[in-house]
Amino acid sequence: MKARVHVMLKDGVLDPQGEAVRHALGTLGFDGVEGVRQGKVIELDLATEDAAAAEAEVREMCEKLLANTVIEKYDIEIG
Amino acid sequence: MKARVHVMLKDGVLDPQGEAVRHALGTLGFDGVEGVRQGKVIELDLATEDAAAAEAEVREMCEKLLANTVIEKYDIEIG
Repeated sequence: MKARVHVMLKDGVLDPQGEAVRHALGTLGFDGVEGVRQGKVIELDLATEDAAAAEAEVREMCEKLLANTVIEKYDIEIG
Repeated sequence: MKARVHVMLKDGVLDPQGEAVRHALGTLGFDGVEGVRQGKVIELDLATEDAAAAEAEVREMCEKLLANTVIEKYDIEIG
């Protein structure tokens, strides 16, 4: 079973990577970019075929390893 | 208008970051993880309200800056 996790900095946490991308896009002539946030996407290939079990397992992975929940938020897509 | 871009290494390109995550998950006791690929997600806030124009602009951004199309693939979600 496939799972996809998005990990983004929480709103209000400064995102220097996103700012750097926004600046670079501006220098390339893309003037209509009002904001950029950059995060991580993690695609997992899981042995289990049970969607509920997979989501619970991935949530635990996020809490323990994949996200720093002090400054990052995550969301999980299963399947 | 919001746009979201996923940038992942192409299939077949070695992903050491993903491998490191898979290994770390294994050491934490998550044994049912068969594969991990890690990529970037970029959320853009665009001035235009025209979905077709936004997609064309974001595609150009991907080709010029956001993705290294030699080794990376991208997909774009608008709205």
